[in-house]
Amino acid sequence: MNYNQIFEKIDDALKPFVSDGKISASIPELAMVDPTKFGIHLLDNRGNDYAFGNSDEKFSIQSISKVFSLSLAFQFMGEQIWQRVGVEPSGNPFNSLVQLEYEKGKPRNPFINAGAMVIADILISNLENPKEDFLNFVRKLAHTENIHYNESVALSEKKVGFRNAALANFLKSFGSIYNEVDIVLDFYFHQCSLEMTCKELAHSFYYFANEGFTKERIKILTQSQTKRLNALMQTCGFYDESGEFAYKVGLPGKSGIGGGIIAIHPKNYSVATWGPKLNEKGNSVLGMKALEFLTTETQMSIF
Amino acid sequence: MNYNQIFEKIDDALKPFVSDGKISASIPELAMVDPTKFGIHLLDNRGNDYAFGNSDEKFSIQSISKVFSLSLAFQFMGEQIWQRVGVEPSGNPFNSLVQLEYEKGKPRNPFINAGAMVIADILISNLENPKEDFLNFVRKLAHTENIHYNESVALSEKKVGFRNAALANFLKSFGSIYNEVDIVLDFYFHQCSLEMTCKELAHSFYYFANEGFTKERIKILTQSQTKRLNALMQTCGFYDESGEFAYKVGLPGKSGIGGGIIAIHPKNYSVATWGPKLNEKGNSVLGMKALEFLTTETQMSIF
Amino acid sequence: MNYNQIFEKIDDALKPFVSDGKISASIPELAMVDPTKFGIHLLDNRGNDYAFGNSDEKFSIQSISKVFSLSLAFQFMGEQIWQRVGVEPSGNPFNSLVQLEYEKGKPRNPFINAGAMVIADILISNLENPKEDFLNFVRKLAHTENIHYNESVALSEKKVGFRNAALANFLKSFGSIYNEVDIVLDFYFHQCSLEMTCKELAHSFYYFANEGFTKERIKILTQSQTKRLNALMQTCGFYDESGEFAYKVGLPGKSGIGGGIIAIHPKNYSVATWGPKLNEKGNSVLGMKALEFLTTETQMSIF
Amino acid sequence: MNYNQIFEKIDDALKPFVSDGKISASIPELAMVDPTKFGIHLLDNRGNDYAFGNSDEKFSIQSISKVFSLSLAFQFMGEQIWQRVGVEPSGNPFNSLVQLEYEKGKPRNPFINAGAMVIADILISNLENPKEDFLNFVRKLAHTENIHYNESVALSEKKVGFRNAALANFLKSFGSIYNEVDIVLDFYFHQCSLEMTCKELAHSFYYFANEGFTKERIKILTQSQTKRLNALMQTCGFYDESGEFAYKVGLPGKSGIGGGIIAIHPKNYSVATWGPKLNEKGNSVLGMKALEFLTTETQMSIF
Repeated sequence: MNYNQIFEKIDDALKPFVSDGKISASIPELAMVDPTKFGIHLLDNRGNDYAFGNSDEKFSIQSISKVFSLSLAFQFMGEQIWQRVGVEPSGNPFNSLVQLEYEKGKPRNPFINAGAMVIADILISNLENPKEDFLNFVRKLAHTENIHYNESVALSEKKVGFRNAALANFLKSFGSIYNEVDIVLDFYFHQCSLEMTCKELAHSFYYFANEGFTKERIKILTQSQTKRLNALMQTCGFYDESGEFAYKVGLPGKSGIGGGIIAIHPKNYSVATWGPKLNEKGNSVLGMKALEFLTTETQMSIF
Repeated sequence: MNYNQIFEKIDDALKPFVSDGKISASIPELAMVDPTKFGIHLLDNRGNDYAFGNSDEKFSIQSISKVFSLSLAFQFMGEQIWQRVGVEPSGNPFNSLVQLEYEKGKPRNPFINAGAMVIADILISNLENPKEDFLNFVRKLAHTENIHYNESVALSEKKVGFRNAALANFLKSFGSIYNEVDIVLDFYFHQCSLEMTCKELAHSFYYFANEGFTKERIKILTQSQTKRLNALMQTCGFYDESGEFAYKVGLPGKSGIGGGIIAIHPKNYSVATWGPKLNEKGNSVLGMKALEFLTTETQMSIF
Repeated sequence: MNYNQIFEKIDDALKPFVSDGKISASIPELAMVDPTKFGIHLLDNRGNDYAFGNSDEKFSIQSISKVFSLSLAFQFMGEQIWQRVGVEPSGNPFNSLVQLEYEKGKPRNPFINAGAMVIADILISNLENPKEDFLNFVRKLAHTENIHYNESVALSEKKVGFRNAALANFLKSFGSIYNEVDIVLDFYFHQCSLEMTCKELAHSFYYFANEGFTKERIKILTQSQTKRLNALMQTCGFYDESGEFAYKVGLPGKSGIGGGIIAIHPKNYSVATWGPKLNEKGNSVLGMKALEFLTTETQMSIF
Repeated sequence: MNYNQIFEKIDDALKPFVSDGKISASIPELAMVDPTKFGIHLLDNRGNDYAFGNSDEKFSIQSISKVFSLSLAFQFMGEQIWQRVGVEPSGNPFNSLVQLEYEKGKPRNPFINAGAMVIADILISNLENPKEDFLNFVRKLAHTENIHYNESVALSEKKVGFRNAALANFLKSFGSIYNEVDIVLDFYFHQCSLEMTCKELAHSFYYFANEGFTKERIKILTQSQTKRLNALMQTCGFYDESGEFAYKVGLPGKSGIGGGIIAIHPKNYSVATWGPKLNEKGNSVLGMKALEFLTTETQMSIF
């Protein structure tokens, strides 16, 4: 399939939506991004790259990092990981404390903030140099050394991240995290501060489209594990808009408030989009639309 | 693929679980079913039938009927239907009133009871003889006249269905249903009382595996609509165990407290299972396991 | 104390507030009341009557009736009544289903609608002719035969009372009411439809100010029971504005959406006010203000 | 009234309950207290002292301190204080985050933990040396210099107080506290660590029984303010058991998880009890019982 032609069409189709949404105001650094940016990069099952727009610019991947940390923790713990986080969609905003209180401190899934903190806690317990080792894992996935934490973003999140500090302390009060609250938060804020391009994201998520293997044939997950995390991205990847994304796009994926989205067509392709302006659920307006057009135009979806 | 061999293996694999779970006690009629029953029927994309066990015995399809009613209402209203029900997983039990109160009477999705009542309300407004016309629609899908409401089950649900009566009145108080509460409940209890076999279910859901067409090439939904309802079954078909089903089985589907489950592998097959004993979330123990073995054994899932 | 002079002052003090609030739109009959009405009647511990404004006009007492039904049910069951309803403030609107779901069908207190329905259920089980007997009880308290149900108000509530029907069915689903849902609702809608004047209310509540005895020395409750129901009115009598009323007025009391309020100064007086326009919590604007002025001006409150 | 004789009777009446309840396990220091302790001290409106049991032993006053901090903050802000905390009972445990989320960060009342933190924040903003000045305020109320923070209790709460840290960060995320989270928590943990005897508590709360004046005629609050805080203790002083306390005891009061309770009979007396074992709601078993016997025996309650 010639995705380049489709990207041209998508670009046209996005025009009515370019002024919709707004940039995340959660931390000052994110607010400084040029709101007109848009990029898309697709890597198909033959290893071909298709790119459009600002697909080679770095942006803050934020919650997309939760899939990396989950994959690595899954390598350590296997199915036992589900004793510490669930696999059910939450039906609530990503940072709600309500559900956590009713469910006695076990986060619904690893993609809400509370769940990602439990995953961070697992990594801290299992890695010798947590932040370094995690960074190296992502670099291996993306097949490049040119990936870094943005320290000022991480610091900024620490300064204003009272909701996340509330969540981490709340988890700690239930015994759901084992390490020090501050250490867990520091790791979490760093993982979210990772900066990558659409191209790097599409490459680093390729193993989800390739039965667990990177483009360079490094095995990350078993075929069965790959299938399972794809299912999890499908049901929980877009906060309380996961149903909408499944309905409109029909692919597993994960979004971040930096405006990035990654989506997977198992055995076919991985695709990353970037558009900084978000809808009220915290997902990229242009990214959602672009992926909807992509699956409609190609008539390829998992459903 | 020779599904018959796989069914033999599944039968072996289910042995450790045959005493797990218990039959729904929600209405007396359901409780009288033989708990040892198990059946499975698969219809593949070449029109081949594969059957095992008690696959030709009628059972109460209960909530599986919600997919039929949604399909028919979708024919009438198209995308406008989502102004009256949402597409997000609920994260709560199927008959919770809490979420409905916080969300001002708009049900999260058409598969929780409240959502199915709104769909019933739409059908009542659009059909000349609602119960008859709906029955005929299901008969057309299943390509057989031998499908009936079980009046004593419907009556029994009316007698003990106080939670459902609460939901219907609650919806009415928000203006979410337009017809009389009693008429909506009567329709709803009838649709749930439909009795079908695994074979009939597999055939009547075949259009979800066949881009919207029945085996007899009758068009029920467009290709796009089919994809969308598949996505909805994926994210919302198993109450607050939808994530678990996606994780373990990886197929869209829908369960009922009569012990039936239907699952779809788009473009590949539709498959129905029946095992009356339920887990604590209200889903058939043997059905869930059987489908998990099926996708593991065949290494075919949408993810 | 010369309450007549105080009433004159109160009348002046209310002037800035006469246009605040609005009449309940919950049922059409209530909406037809003249919004400018205001009346107050106080009966002191020497049996003196003090009246002002429209204190001799009948109005719909609505939820104020819940205190009568509780008193009568308390006569039958004594302390055992608290096995079926609680004594804690709810912190939620009077007709919320959420709390009821989390607390498994036991209403928080007898003054929220769900609690009043459980009390109605108790009366139906204990009275030979529930509606007649209850009416006679209220007539005895008020020392007049001229008290009646308003059948058209009761009928109107039945027609539009879907939220109440939801509550009653919900209670029934938990086994919290024993009689038929329709019978409980019929009783409940009738008790709320009672019409009384401020004078009749002040007289019929006099036993709460008089250690359990009516003005005519009929014993209704023991001294200890009287004290306890006063405490209950204090903590739960004004829905989710009970704290505000305690804070501003400092007397036990009960309000109704017909615009009536009854308040008790134990061993001193009972006082009833009526002003049809309600604040957003469903309590009479002028009644709340009048009672605040009364306790401020007299420097008499229980605190 | 000869309270000494009544105390003897109460001591007898408590015998069946001495083995009920258990000591708070929230912090290790509290768990080391002798569980058999019981003391009571009453100061009447003529300035007479009545004491019984371990009424001169120091214990951790914990949440009782919230009334001191509220009184002091009320001096600074007057009625404007209610723009930052509410006056409604919460209907939830004292440390719930759920309600706070639904109500956008404004605590229900100043006696739940979140509310007390907002009050602490107000004091920090208004006092030059917050911890010292607050301590001096309490010493003035109690008319003794012999009152101290227990630093090891304060430290211990900091070490294990993850739920409180979650609350404080949550409040900060809503902008409900203005000072640094750590400073607010440090103040809060210190105020809770105050150690006092029953006698000191009865004396330091005397202004609530004496129209705003201490025994030494120092004016703390106006008569109107006194009445209002009494009302607040009545409706909110015992967490989600406030209704039960009002029902059984009928006096305004406040409890702490150190096993202390203070209660006020306006214009009559202040009374403090101490018994370390708590019921499941976190209130002293013997203290609740003792006060119930006191008001029953004396036939004096505000109702």
